[in-house]
Order: sequence, then structure tokens, then C-alpha cells
Amino acid sequence: MSQCCNKDELNMITRKTTQEISIGDVAIGGNAPITVQSMTNTDTRDVISTVTQVKALEAAGCELIRVAVPDMEAASAISRIRDQITIPLIADIHFDSRLAVAALENGAQAIRINPGNLGGADKLARVVDAAKMYNAPIRVGVNSGSIEKELLKKYGYPTPENTRALIESALTNVAALEKLGFNAIKISIKSSDTLTTIAGYRELSERTSYPLHIGVTEAGGLIPGTVKSSVALGILLFEGVGDTFRISLTRDPVEEIRVGYELLRSLRIRERGPEMISCPTCGRTRIDLFPMAEEIERVLQTMKSNLKVAVMGCVVNGPGEAKEADIGIAGGHGTGIIFKKGELWKKLPEDELLATFLDELAKMEQERLAK
Amino acid sequence: MSQCCNKDELNMITRKTTQEISIGDVAIGGNAPITVQSMTNTDTRDVISTVTQVKALEAAGCELIRVAVPDMEAASAISRIRDQITIPLIADIHFDSRLAVAALENGAQAIRINPGNLGGADKLARVVDAAKMYNAPIRVGVNSGSIEKELLKKYGYPTPENTRALIESALTNVAALEKLGFNAIKISIKSSDTLTTIAGYRELSERTSYPLHIGVTEAGGLIPGTVKSSVALGILLFEGVGDTFRISLTRDPVEEIRVGYELLRSLRIRERGPEMISCPTCGRTRIDLFPMAEEIERVLQTMKSNLKVAVMGCVVNGPGEAKEADIGIAGGHGTGIIFKKGELWKKLPEDELLATFLDELAKMEQERLAK
Repeated sequence: MSQCCNKDELNMITRKTTQEISIGDVAIGGNAPITVQSMTNTDTRDVISTVTQVKALEAAGCELIRVAVPDMEAASAISRIRDQITIPLIADIHFDSRLAVAALENGAQAIRINPGNLGGADKLARVVDAAKMYNAPIRVGVNSGSIEKELLKKYGYPTPENTRALIESALTNVAALEKLGFNAIKISIKSSDTLTTIAGYRELSERTSYPLHIGVTEAGGLIPGTVKSSVALGILLFEGVGDTFRISLTRDPVEEIRVGYELLRSLRIRERGPEMISCPTCGRTRIDLFPMAEEIERVLQTMKSNLKVAVMGCVVNGPGEAKEADIGIAGGHGTGIIFKKGELWKKLPEDELLATFLDELAKMEQERLAK
Repeated sequence: MSQCCNKDELNMITRKTTQEISIGDVAIGGNAPITVQSMTNTDTRDVISTVTQVKALEAAGCELIRVAVPDMEAASAISRIRDQITIPLIADIHFDSRLAVAALENGAQAIRINPGNLGGADKLARVVDAAKMYNAPIRVGVNSGSIEKELLKKYGYPTPENTRALIESALTNVAALEKLGFNAIKISIKSSDTLTTIAGYRELSERTSYPLHIGVTEAGGLIPGTVKSSVALGILLFEGVGDTFRISLTRDPVEEIRVGYELLRSLRIRERGPEMISCPTCGRTRIDLFPMAEEIERVLQTMKSNLKVAVMGCVVNGPGEAKEADIGIAGGHGTGIIFKKGELWKKLPEDELLATFLDELAKMEQERLAK
């Protein structure tokens, strides 16, 4: 296994080196942590709803937020939104270069565009001038569904075997920005297909040193979307590809952030909050574990320390199989145990088990945070 | 990209060659499809509850079912369970060799044991004799938490950098079976840690040609468990490692099957039922997409054909971004469209949209199944 190049990461992963850019005070690429971002699904013109959603996302750990800017009213709402949020804001623009300029004038700290669809070189030049003036990076955001017609004709619709159209679209658009003397760039090439995503970003990361925003687009509902994104982004991040990402789900975007951190944790890239390991229960289980596990999961979501917590159905195997847990609970016949690092801490009747466990968990959280 | 060795798979994946075994009528390893299995969490002695759960799992696509056998009553329940289910049954045994023999006598079509904890060579020999007599394969199932003490002392507790204890435990136990002339073996080495799982199975697959049962143990609740399993198993399957698997979740095991098929689909290894791509919605969305998407998702779960279905928030980008969908729906301002393969099929007022879409979807399902 190769050496690690980044203190965030274990030595199973060698992160590809990319240029660092900054969106507001958040660095992307280089040695910066891999950041978790999302996009609001509120009407951007509705400042109250948008700010409320961004605040919920901030609380969940979202580090960059993108908002759609379909019209001038949305562009001008950005300044009022920014006044009330703390994470950097990225404006998502399609087709209309004037919206990009207006978004930047209203305080967008970055813009996501598809430079090829802004209506020509002059219009792109005006957007780039504004991005330079406001020190705002540009994401070149290519999607399988919005590739230039001539590239589709030349290279065919993107598939895992042939991602040329995606790559060429991205690199052509990047070259257009470079020609205008602009280099604060990150790139995305999104597809709703897992294998196309993997193949495309693998190749792109060999052909550019700009930071990459990775993601699967239109990934779907909570479970299908979580699986698709975990597989595609998991494989890419494991190979060292990707500097920032969005998990796209047809759900409350707060779930996107939660899945995002679980993904980073699973590869030991970053940790946020406690980890719960819990067994699936089996015919040996003599305790009603699911409600207990769900209650503990709910409490853990409010905690900040990186405690490792186990919830096991079986007193015999539980503590041994969860040796690495700082604290764990295991149920038996009417009684249960609480264990720490695999060793028995307390044996209790079932009806005192959960309350005692949650008390001790709260104490341990306090101690960790006090350190 | 390398050549494919199995008709189920795209050429991004080269599956490692393993020996084929059969559990009942289900082949595992070799060129057999990668199978999705689960484990009941009912009391095995409670035949009605166990059969009910197995039937729900069968309906969801579960291909092999494991039941815990903690005592003789559970072992003898197996014959009555088998009478009422169609998929092969695997008995999960710890410590007591008599339970393994009794499970086989009662019709278990395979057993999962940790040969090192059955109480010595004589007892293991008796189990192997019974397995031979009933033509039942044995899974050598090693867990990080139940490795032999001397191996732990020699090699240390398994970590991503050092999976020796897991591997040596598995291979030592396999050698003990081989010495008894037994070769109908599959192997698992489970850990609750994603990276340990990846590193361990990677090495194991190089050191053995027995089929591998892969999985992350105690993976956790629905979302954390789905992410962990998707990342670990996604990476392994993408590298061609793994012949059968279980997604372990602290939830209704039917969810394990659902996640399992989403995993196989995401890597285009196997497909079961329709696929839905759906956008996460954004500030451009002028339709209440989430309830519509959830309703469509619910209907799709009852369908069998491999239709690709899109649910998009935006009439402008939706059809283009979901060109590959057989049928799709996109919402606008009070009206919406239904499209097929990226082309407009019908424009409708919002209140007729969902019903018309579901009607057409049902028709297309019928047509596909009639083919």
C-alpha cells in the first residue's frame, strides 16, 4: 500500500494532487480537507425559506452552499441571503450571462456555469471579468444531459466505455477560461450513471490538475441515491480523486450532508460526530433492539465528539465483536450489559439499561469535549 | 480497461475466478451470478414468524437465507421452516458441534461455522462427516471479534494495515476442513471497519480460490450501514472480489435485500426491477416533486421489468438530462410533461400528470413483461 500524502488520510489512499482554490474562506483542492456541499431546493427569491434551509444545512456540517439563480430577482436575493448565513455561497447559472454577473455583484463567492451555453465569447468574457473583480472561482459544470451538440455528434453520448464527450466538453470550456487569463477553476462532469461517473473522473483527474467537484447527478431517492453515490464517490475517493462533493438525493438536502459525512467516515478521510456500530440482530437476540438502536442513533446525531458507540443484540458475542467501541450496550434475557472497550462496565435489568447507557454516554461526551 | 470474464458484467470489472459450490440449487462462485442473501432476526424456534420473514425476503429477491441456531429446538425447527420456503437455508452455528449436526439432519443446506471454536478436531470431524453426508457446503465465517486468542496475540487485532489475524484464522480453518477431505467451502472475514474489510478481502482473494462471502459486520443503521456496505462492497465488487454477500443493517432485513440489489445495479452487475433516476430539485423547481417521487418510487418497488424511469423537477433540463429514461415526468408552472427517451410525449395540467404517468407506466410494464 502506498504512502499517504495528506494528514487527513490513512495510507490506503493517496490523494491526487490538485491546485488549491478558495471560495470565501473555504479552500478546495491541494491539501485542503475534502469538503461536503449541498444545494438549496427552496425558491431562491424566497429569502426566509432559503436562509432557514441553509442554516439547517450549516448545522448538519454543510461547508459550501449552492443556490439556483433562474432570474434577476433570485440574483438580487443573494445579498440578503449572504447577510444571514456563514458558509460561502455559490450561484448556479444556466444560459444567461447577465445572471452570472448579477449574482457576483450581489455577493456570490463562486459561480457554477457551463461556459459553452452562456451565449458566446463576449458574454463569457464579461462573466470572467466579474469573477476576477470579485475574486470568485468558477465551477465548469458539465452534465451528460447538457453537452454541446457538436461534441455529442463527434464523440457520442457518454457511457462508461466512452466518456470523451464529457471530458472534451469540460476541457474545452476550461481552455476558454484560461484563454481569458482565468485559473480559479474547479470542474465537474456529472452523469446519473455510476460507471460513467467513475470512468469519467478517473480520466479527467489524469488530464487536469484543477480541483474536482465529484458527484452523481439525479442519483434518485434516499436508498438508491445513497447507494449510487456511495459506490461511485467511494471508489473515486478511495483512488484519491475528488476535492469536494455533493451527494444528490431527491430528499431534504440535510440528508445529503449526513450521507456525505458517513461516506468520508467510512473511508477514514474525515470524521464528524460519533460513530455507531450496531448488529443486525438474529435469532439469538432476546431483546427488542431496533427501537433502542433508533433512540441511540437519534441521540448520537445531536452529539459532536467522535465517540465510537456499539449497540449489540447479544451479551455473548456483542462485547467481543465491538471491542473498539468506547461504550457499548448488549441485550440478553431481561437483563443487559454496558461495556467499555470490550470489558463489562455494568450489568442491569432491561428496563434500566437504556437510561443508564444514555446518562453515561452524555458524561463521556462532556469529558471528550472538555479535553 | 480490462476484459470481462462473466456475461453478467461490463468490461470495467474483471471478476476473480473462484471455485463453484452449490447450496441447494443456488450456485456460488465461478461464473454464477453474485447472489444476495440475508439472515432472519426472528426467533428460529418460532416457525411461523421465521417463515413469514423468509417469505417477505424471498419476495424482495433474497436468494439464500441464514438462520441462527442457538439451541436444539432451533435446529429441529429447520425442517418445518424448510417445508414452507423455496430458497436454500443456511444454519448459523457457534461453539456447539452438535447443533451443526442437528441442523444438517434437519435439512440445513449449508452451515456457517467458525471451525476453530467448535471444541476440537474430533467434533469438527463429526460436523464435516454430516456435511458430506448431506452434501452441504460450509462457510468458514471469521469475525474480527471472534478470532482465536493465539492468532490475535501473534498478529494483533485486525486493522486496515494488518489483516493477518483475519486471514490466518480463515486459512487455518480452511486447512482443517481440507485435511478432512472437505472442499465445498466458502469464506468470510468480517469486520465492522470498511478499510479493514477492503484490505482483508483483497488479500484473501489472492490467497484462495474458494468463493468469498463478503460483508461488513455490525454496519449500523439504515443510512450509516448502507453507506459503509456500499463503499466496502462496492470497491470489492468493482475489483472483482466477492461471489455472494449480505448487507448487514440494524433494520428489517428486507431493506438489506433492497440495498443489495441497488448495489449490484449501480455497478451494472445485475438488475432487478425498474430503476428510477430523480433530480434533487432546486430553486428552479416549480412543482412539489418529493411526494410525487415517493409515490412513484413506491409503485416501482412493486414492478418487475427493468424500465428506466425519470422524475425531474424541471421541464427545461429534465428531458435532456434523462435522455436514457424509457419514461419520465417533469414538472413546471402548473403544468408538466411526460417524456420518453428524451422526447415530449404529453403535456398535461399538474393535477392530471401523476395519474396519466402511472397509467402509462403500468402499460409499459405489461408490454415489457409480455415480451
